[in-house]
Amino acid sequence: MAVYTEIPDEELHAFLGQYAIGRLIACKGIAEGIENSNFLLVTETGTYILTLYEKRVKPADLPFFLALMDHLAARGIPCPTPVHGVDGRALRSVAGRMAAIVTFLSGLWPRRPTVLHCQELGAAMARMHEAGRDFPLERANDLSVTGWRPLLQASCRKRGSIADDLRFELEHELKLLERDWPSALPKGVIHADLFPDNVFYEGERLSGLIDFYFACTDFFAYDLAVALNAWCFETDGSFNVTKARRLFSGYRSERSLAPAEIEALPLLARGAAMRFLLTRLYDWLYAPKNALATPKNPMEYVQKMRFHRGIRDVRSYGLD
Amino acid sequence: MAVYTEIPDEELHAFLGQYAIGRLIACKGIAEGIENSNFLLVTETGTYILTLYEKRVKPADLPFFLALMDHLAARGIPCPTPVHGVDGRALRSVAGRMAAIVTFLSGLWPRRPTVLHCQELGAAMARMHEAGRDFPLERANDLSVTGWRPLLQASCRKRGSIADDLRFELEHELKLLERDWPSALPKGVIHADLFPDNVFYEGERLSGLIDFYFACTDFFAYDLAVALNAWCFETDGSFNVTKARRLFSGYRSERSLAPAEIEALPLLARGAAMRFLLTRLYDWLYAPKNALATPKNPMEYVQKMRFHRGIRDVRSYGLD
Repeated sequence: MAVYTEIPDEELHAFLGQYAIGRLIACKGIAEGIENSNFLLVTETGTYILTLYEKRVKPADLPFFLALMDHLAARGIPCPTPVHGVDGRALRSVAGRMAAIVTFLSGLWPRRPTVLHCQELGAAMARMHEAGRDFPLERANDLSVTGWRPLLQASCRKRGSIADDLRFELEHELKLLERDWPSALPKGVIHADLFPDNVFYEGERLSGLIDFYFACTDFFAYDLAVALNAWCFETDGSFNVTKARRLFSGYRSERSLAPAEIEALPLLARGAAMRFLLTRLYDWLYAPKNALATPKNPMEYVQKMRFHRGIRDVRSYGLD
Repeated sequence: MAVYTEIPDEELHAFLGQYAIGRLIACKGIAEGIENSNFLLVTETGTYILTLYEKRVKPADLPFFLALMDHLAARGIPCPTPVHGVDGRALRSVAGRMAAIVTFLSGLWPRRPTVLHCQELGAAMARMHEAGRDFPLERANDLSVTGWRPLLQASCRKRGSIADDLRFELEHELKLLERDWPSALPKGVIHADLFPDNVFYEGERLSGLIDFYFACTDFFAYDLAVALNAWCFETDGSFNVTKARRLFSGYRSERSLAPAEIEALPLLARGAAMRFLLTRLYDWLYAPKNALATPKNPMEYVQKMRFHRGIRDVRSYGLD
């Protein structure tokens, strides 16, 4: 539920005057996305998304994100394409925020992902990984293993925030992740946040990947680990091995997984669970009461972390 | 910022199957509107708004609202037109809520209303009043004078909610309003909530009136009183007599005001200020902490009420 910044009329018109997208017909704030303010623009030439980047996005990272969308879209990945102004620039400012207009993608994100959705996602993710191989920019994943300890410490500083036994569990898990985190897996551009609300479908056909604002240079298999957590557990916490199998088979239909990547999956999945657990915990503890976005429950990810800790063999993921 | 209810995919598709509006291309929650959940639907045949009615709207009132929009749209008033399903019905249910699809209106609501916006609004309001004259349904205004005392009492019950001097002032004002409220002014269908975010413009030309969910049968001049408060004060609290003059001259270009209506305006404006003051005060005190819509500050309306109390002559409103 996110429109954090209102745009005064005159500013909006002056801003749009810098683009060749025709007269504005309507502009509606969109109640989706947590990090930024998003508006749906209808103009004479079509429909677009206007994003105002709020404080969580570092301005220095924006050229990476926009160039990445340009790069992937040019290689046929269905993702938002930045609209460049008449001066050639895709990034400018309005209402005191950095802002960009991107193309509108049709489709709906699945409220109840199916096995076919998972298969399509796997294939699209692998195509995106391949398409990003010749992308020239790099961006470190600041929410990977080295970023987790500061988040855990900040959450533990909040008095009474975490029960002792959970804190011990998280500290023990974090130590192990820091010790064993791989360093030599195949790397490239990953999305790093492929949750269902960032993937659009028309029926069961994937029609778009959106929200590249956590994209970074990291292990390809880590992207799979994030998606495994986000797509393959049911709302009651149970693991759906059929969905996992289809996610991986979709992926491998477009890019083969090296044995080291497969072997690392349980640990990567524990790490991916830790990452979302910690950011949710932090938001839970520090989000202002009047925040427009309701913080998500971190405990869901504690359960997922424990599940992966119990994995002895990747056949439990439907992999062979 | 309002999407209170998510619609599961299958339910949305089953629901849309009851309309002849073509294949769904996209569905986005809209971060506007306070009372209901609103979604922008893009289909093969165009763009629509899907509204799910949340608890504040009484289901028994929905036929009145939808029939009114049908009636006004048929008479050329630029307002959302309910889309009827293949079974002829405009109202049905989805995701446990009553719901309706209406046509999409182009235009933007003015963040900073100008005198021209006020003139256009006055004229459109008068045309709407005239167009509603032969509307056969009636709905009492449950937020008019008889509805205010229960709201004030509920707010005063909340310990420490209102300073003593303000409570005395409101009780005194309410007594006077109850005693002097007119009963014989020209009546008909009014919108009763014509705030800037319910009026769309393309440039300075009015392109739409939306959100008829407070519409009711009441004094035409009360609609003007609501708009006077909502459009003719600047953000610093000062009264802009030029905007008021243009609001009234726009109105009178389409419908003449009887002397009794003009004479009643200061009292109606005090009542309209009381109405929004009390509902805001109630929401302020009783809205759940995690509400998606931030309660609006009631004190703005205390200032407006005091301003109108000081009016000795309608020339202060730019009326002659």
